[in-house]
Amino acid sequence: MGFASDNGSGVPAAVLDALARANDGAVPGYGDDALSARVTDRLRAVFEAPQAEVRLVPTGSAANALALAVLTPPWGAVWCHRLAHVEVDECGAPEFFTGGAKLSLLDGAHARIDPETLDRALSRAPRSVHQVQPATLSLTTLTECGTAYSAEHLAALAGVAHRHGLGVHLDGARFANALVATGATPAELSWKAGVDVLCLGGTKNGLMAAEAVILFDPARAAEFDLRRKRGGHLLSKHRYLAAQFDAWLEGDLWLDLAARANRAGARLAQGLGAIDGVELRHPVDGNMLFPRWPAEMAEGLRAGGVRFYGGPDPDAPGHETARLVASWNTTDAEIDAALAICRGH
Amino acid sequence: MGFASDNGSGVPAAVLDALARANDGAVPGYGDDALSARVTDRLRAVFEAPQAEVRLVPTGSAANALALAVLTPPWGAVWCHRLAHVEVDECGAPEFFTGGAKLSLLDGAHARIDPETLDRALSRAPRSVHQVQPATLSLTTLTECGTAYSAEHLAALAGVAHRHGLGVHLDGARFANALVATGATPAELSWKAGVDVLCLGGTKNGLMAAEAVILFDPARAAEFDLRRKRGGHLLSKHRYLAAQFDAWLEGDLWLDLAARANRAGARLAQGLGAIDGVELRHPVDGNMLFPRWPAEMAEGLRAGGVRFYGGPDPDAPGHETARLVASWNTTDAEIDAALAICRGH
Amino acid sequence: MGFASDNGSGVPAAVLDALARANDGAVPGYGDDALSARVTDRLRAVFEAPQAEVRLVPTGSAANALALAVLTPPWGAVWCHRLAHVEVDECGAPEFFTGGAKLSLLDGAHARIDPETLDRALSRAPRSVHQVQPATLSLTTLTECGTAYSAEHLAALAGVAHRHGLGVHLDGARFANALVATGATPAELSWKAGVDVLCLGGTKNGLMAAEAVILFDPARAAEFDLRRKRGGHLLSKHRYLAAQFDAWLEGDLWLDLAARANRAGARLAQGLGAIDGVELRHPVDGNMLFPRWPAEMAEGLRAGGVRFYGGPDPDAPGHETARLVASWNTTDAEIDAALAICRGH
Amino acid sequence: MGFASDNGSGVPAAVLDALARANDGAVPGYGDDALSARVTDRLRAVFEAPQAEVRLVPTGSAANALALAVLTPPWGAVWCHRLAHVEVDECGAPEFFTGGAKLSLLDGAHARIDPETLDRALSRAPRSVHQVQPATLSLTTLTECGTAYSAEHLAALAGVAHRHGLGVHLDGARFANALVATGATPAELSWKAGVDVLCLGGTKNGLMAAEAVILFDPARAAEFDLRRKRGGHLLSKHRYLAAQFDAWLEGDLWLDLAARANRAGARLAQGLGAIDGVELRHPVDGNMLFPRWPAEMAEGLRAGGVRFYGGPDPDAPGHETARLVASWNTTDAEIDAALAICRGH
Repeated sequence: MGFASDNGSGVPAAVLDALARANDGAVPGYGDDALSARVTDRLRAVFEAPQAEVRLVPTGSAANALALAVLTPPWGAVWCHRLAHVEVDECGAPEFFTGGAKLSLLDGAHARIDPETLDRALSRAPRSVHQVQPATLSLTTLTECGTAYSAEHLAALAGVAHRHGLGVHLDGARFANALVATGATPAELSWKAGVDVLCLGGTKNGLMAAEAVILFDPARAAEFDLRRKRGGHLLSKHRYLAAQFDAWLEGDLWLDLAARANRAGARLAQGLGAIDGVELRHPVDGNMLFPRWPAEMAEGLRAGGVRFYGGPDPDAPGHETARLVASWNTTDAEIDAALAICRGH
Repeated sequence: MGFASDNGSGVPAAVLDALARANDGAVPGYGDDALSARVTDRLRAVFEAPQAEVRLVPTGSAANALALAVLTPPWGAVWCHRLAHVEVDECGAPEFFTGGAKLSLLDGAHARIDPETLDRALSRAPRSVHQVQPATLSLTTLTECGTAYSAEHLAALAGVAHRHGLGVHLDGARFANALVATGATPAELSWKAGVDVLCLGGTKNGLMAAEAVILFDPARAAEFDLRRKRGGHLLSKHRYLAAQFDAWLEGDLWLDLAARANRAGARLAQGLGAIDGVELRHPVDGNMLFPRWPAEMAEGLRAGGVRFYGGPDPDAPGHETARLVASWNTTDAEIDAALAICRGH
Repeated sequence: MGFASDNGSGVPAAVLDALARANDGAVPGYGDDALSARVTDRLRAVFEAPQAEVRLVPTGSAANALALAVLTPPWGAVWCHRLAHVEVDECGAPEFFTGGAKLSLLDGAHARIDPETLDRALSRAPRSVHQVQPATLSLTTLTECGTAYSAEHLAALAGVAHRHGLGVHLDGARFANALVATGATPAELSWKAGVDVLCLGGTKNGLMAAEAVILFDPARAAEFDLRRKRGGHLLSKHRYLAAQFDAWLEGDLWLDLAARANRAGARLAQGLGAIDGVELRHPVDGNMLFPRWPAEMAEGLRAGGVRFYGGPDPDAPGHETARLVASWNTTDAEIDAALAICRGH
Repeated sequence: MGFASDNGSGVPAAVLDALARANDGAVPGYGDDALSARVTDRLRAVFEAPQAEVRLVPTGSAANALALAVLTPPWGAVWCHRLAHVEVDECGAPEFFTGGAKLSLLDGAHARIDPETLDRALSRAPRSVHQVQPATLSLTTLTECGTAYSAEHLAALAGVAHRHGLGVHLDGARFANALVATGATPAELSWKAGVDVLCLGGTKNGLMAAEAVILFDPARAAEFDLRRKRGGHLLSKHRYLAAQFDAWLEGDLWLDLAARANRAGARLAQGLGAIDGVELRHPVDGNMLFPRWPAEMAEGLRAGGVRFYGGPDPDAPGHETARLVASWNTTDAEIDAALAICRGH
């Protein structure tokens, strides 16, 4: 039973089938193939953005770092939440790809930033030649605490950012889960809200290793292309990236996978919420849960073969905090088995 | 009929099967899975290098750039052939990943470097604080002209490099083809010849997108790991990289694929060599051919649906130069059809 | 009357004289001259550190950034106070010179860090491959709030840092002022307290443009030299940097200059402390003062030709906050004139 | 007797006087002082370029690297002569400041590039996403072989560069010597010839440590300012940089100093040219000479206390090659003494 991450699960059969179908014949490399063009067309349609440029890369860190690099000069600052994946979990990839930009951190409950907090911070940020220059707002949804931004919240944040001259990047590693959580359309949760560059995650939602960067301003694409190649992220047999996305978009499979993961998350949340001694530290909008629970309960789960990230809560002796993530293929039986272990402690 | 590149071909069924087999179950990410461990064991055995560390990445440019970065400080120089892929075809990835090292270029017939040329260049390279410091020798085999280095040749070059205090990187995008061409063992063509870090290419020899970096000195692995993550090249669902290599190594499939490509190259070379007006500019040791031929012959091939890189020879009016690459799945029929077109001009 | 910064004042006559004396004759460049060697000898003696290597550069930002770069890999984190000059006032120079390291920020009253705060932060910092690796502790004394670290406080911080595997950098732009403030010896306030690399500021204490980087571990010097050249900070006519330091160290001029500045700071603090409505936000250990005062008082000073950095306090309407810095050549008359203006409001 | 470099000589008394005059009073830092503004005005007048922006930095490597960085993206190529100072003598500063651009090298007699050579190279340079993109032409005058470009030659080169979409940087470490050598006006040898950014060297022509970067397109200045600060090259006590330039420009002192150095170079060249066994390898247009001479003659000079760079000619046993540079204060007596030693061998 794996709740360590949605990147621990396999892929649906449709993805394997698509790879097999894409395997025939000699086709041009580096994205100049028909399948890659079709994915671009599909994503333009899904996002109601016929001008957008689409680029595929193998990892979310690459997508984020390249996106930030086209928005942020080396002397720029990327403003983001203190818990943002780009700050915490990418070993400095944004700093590397931007040529040494600075990540300026904001606080906010449940990993969400308030527009007022952002506005005050940007208003007070000095901009003389002695300081890095505010360049980019980087948001995430689902956030690192599993919460979703509403389209209105995103739009308010992007509005503040644009007013202060910043571009807006959205880390959408779990964008599909956020769509399902909010009921917003892809356009509403991206360019209509003011997002300039979206990293649309596939890997955490049923693909092997495929992420799409959607540049709503196509003028940024030429630089992106050179940075992607220079970063070693232009795949020669690009068709296999495209095939994954093609299967994912076909018949809205991506939304179906995300809906399944979110439903599993909700079932788990409901079960845990009813157990004495378990506190869910953040609202569960999608497929991620952050319980604080007795250490022996956590140990019991581990002993029962349940995998998740967690450890002692330094501020609450005898307790642990943990992160559990449901996947598209998490079963009710797995959830119920885990809950049964919890209830037994 | 595609002779544009060996990265234009698909993958053998065994690779697709391996992906499907690897798809079951929730497994740890980022390379901490059993399949990844098995690939490391297999490669250690194949290379007779039980201490070596193995790291998988999705592209050859990533493999090369990361390997160069662990060998070369920002103020270092990478010495390589003027035609080296790292110099010509990676949009400055080595400069990016090293933090601004310099590529110092050497000449040599058929993209091979003479040990004497290297020794003279390194002996004359000033090393005061005003100059970048010679740090790394980067070699390629098969070379960019399709030639192979013998194990002895490699060893002589690496000996010169080590004597001058440089580390040795081998770009083995077509290492399997070089093994087949030379009859050397993997160990003889790498660490026994003095190679410190080998980039073992899978993508051009039947994989989807998978390259292995073999660090014969395991002390370099920790830095490599951080650079790989920071470069966005640590795949979360790492099992799919590993599955490709696992299938590739099983039953020496990789050598079989390379042998097929080399045989196709030889057949094509033999055919072209017998056609008036066609000159092969470099010896054909593996699966790459570099003809100079009449422009109308090139046009005829294009008209017949044969794909390859080429264009007018600025130094020989009425002629073109071209690069043709055979793949593991190039058929005799395709070759003969192409030859027939040539003969018709 | 200039209280904007101690870098707004001129230099003592002894420095001009030393430049004139150094002007004769053709001497080797790039630091290979006798005067540069003498400065090294003098600083080794002053710091009781016969093994230390000394390097001169023209600016404090260069000194800090180069020092941090020899201590911190691109994937490293520099831990420092939120108000540190390296974080706030160098336009990302540390990120640039390190190749994209991250500055991790700590809080602490009056710009000083508590050892417990540091220990807790380093204990909780994750160190997997997904995170930048804690590499360096960067401290400043006088701090950006004008306070001094005692030698014991520095030693406690450096002890924590070393225990966690970090190196220790000390930004000593106002190191001489800190020496005077604490009564500690140069050695006690640097290597005896665990400082690995000290940036000893000359410019803010009576020199034109000269800073010394003292590498207590001489093994770091070779890399420093290459980074300094590569950063454009190796002056060809190095004798003029050395001449400044030579005059500064002669007869303890540097300590005399700092003592004068600190006395001026104390006089100003005493005067302001006796004025109703003026609050000194930080203890005045040296030559820097941070008043919060009525806006009309600040305006009155400006109208009277007194220069300083300051502006509206966003949290206290009708008030301003300001920074005043006394210099080696600030006169009692200037101070008293400024105080008289304040008293008039 | 020092012929090692024109950076081995002292400065004229007028420069020392100017520093002393600039020393009075508290003035704003970072270039916001009246003296810095006056230098800008003077240089605009001298160059007939009222729109140009002027920035001062302490070293020539900083000037060049910052200038190249505002012209060249990280994925760009700087085209320059194989012997260019930016390639050979700056420890990779251009690569560092640009974020990893590539220097693409051109041949040409006496360190000068032919327009035809440049045009052919740029015409053949591939520009797909796999290659760094030609961005900047970097020229030097006096060249590293001591030759001068005529204004027409410069204009032809810049014309080719602009036609191919490149910007033009001129390393003018010895620009004053080039002006004297060619008789061209400052404007003719810079923006009228198509130079976009000029690095105007002061240090090698009588200043302590001061170089001016002249940005003929003022739109580049804002980025330059941030890069300068971030590079640690914005001096706080900027008036001392400005004072040097102010004295240098006063009464055309700079041209007088260069004329003296060039006359010394000519006298030395004439003398050496008349000595059997001495070959001058390059035309002597200014103050630099490159003799090939018998090893015993070189040894005799060294024994006689004459300093210069040189060493065995690996291609001519028994001979050495050397570089001799005359300075503004080289005397006829020094020259004649050196020539007497040569004649004695």
